[in-house]
Amino acid sequence: MNEAIRIIGIDPGLRRTGWGVVESAGNALRFVAAGTVRSDDKAALAARLCQLHDGLAEVLERTAPQEAAVEQTFVNKDATATLKLGQARGIAMLVPARAGLVVAEYAPNAVKKAVIGVGHGDKQQIQLMVKVLLPKASFDSADSADALAIAICHAHHRQSTAYRIALAG
Amino acid sequence: MNEAIRIIGIDPGLRRTGWGVVESAGNALRFVAAGTVRSDDKAALAARLCQLHDGLAEVLERTAPQEAAVEQTFVNKDATATLKLGQARGIAMLVPARAGLVVAEYAPNAVKKAVIGVGHGDKQQIQLMVKVLLPKASFDSADSADALAIAICHAHHRQSTAYRIALAG
Repeated sequence: MNEAIRIIGIDPGLRRTGWGVVESAGNALRFVAAGTVRSDDKAALAARLCQLHDGLAEVLERTAPQEAAVEQTFVNKDATATLKLGQARGIAMLVPARAGLVVAEYAPNAVKKAVIGVGHGDKQQIQLMVKVLLPKASFDSADSADALAIAICHAHHRQSTAYRIALAG
Repeated sequence: MNEAIRIIGIDPGLRRTGWGVVESAGNALRFVAAGTVRSDDKAALAARLCQLHDGLAEVLERTAPQEAAVEQTFVNKDATATLKLGQARGIAMLVPARAGLVVAEYAPNAVKKAVIGVGHGDKQQIQLMVKVLLPKASFDSADSADALAIAICHAHHRQSTAYRIALAG
């Protein structure tokens, strides 16, 4: 289990999709890259989905991760917002899956627990802990910090026996 | 405006995405093909989105439509269902957009009005009117009949001056 594995975390959104890549080897974590794919909110929906697709595909090609993790979208009370998020999330899961990567999903509280130690906390606490866990990390948005937190969460979980059995099954 | 144009209508859904292709020349409409892309509900979400993507991409390649129309998803009260539908809808819009097609969106009542003549009616009425408007049509599911209705709706609307100006803008 000491081989380095490269993980991309993705925090999907129609306007901004955050991404963050880390390398995990045993208990060691290393920051690789992070950023934000944006879509033009004046463009038609189909064009915006293409922008997210092409941006994420370019990131995957450039950073070459071996596994992907996407946050299980927070289902809020606004159905129109949920639908928009769903559309962006569809693209965020499709791109790594088509590239042949395993795509794991984590609930927001699992992601918080992995980086903060408890299942709740605000965006600022997440950013602070991402900086502690990945001292060399730089991120251009709260979304890319969240994406790094998702990648960290996957680095922790993929080492558990249960997860490895689930992947093999 | 009498040149024949080939239109694909898509009725997105995670389990079943219906599609229907028609050819429109002036006021004449001709059935080309229709069917249903299914995803395996025992597979992981990312794999299911890939199945929808690959199925739709194969249909586009085989039927070579020039324009696409997708129903504006009915936003129901169940947020989990809305999210699922959103994910499928993201793929249904992405595939034709990446192929370079214009992707129009129509509200369900606009689709009903185009085929039934009024903005309400059940699935059976839609299927009946699709058979009247496209006597040679055959469809394998209610979703593919709905997809043909969406294509018919786009055939009507794309001839309006307002729509052509919007497309050019």
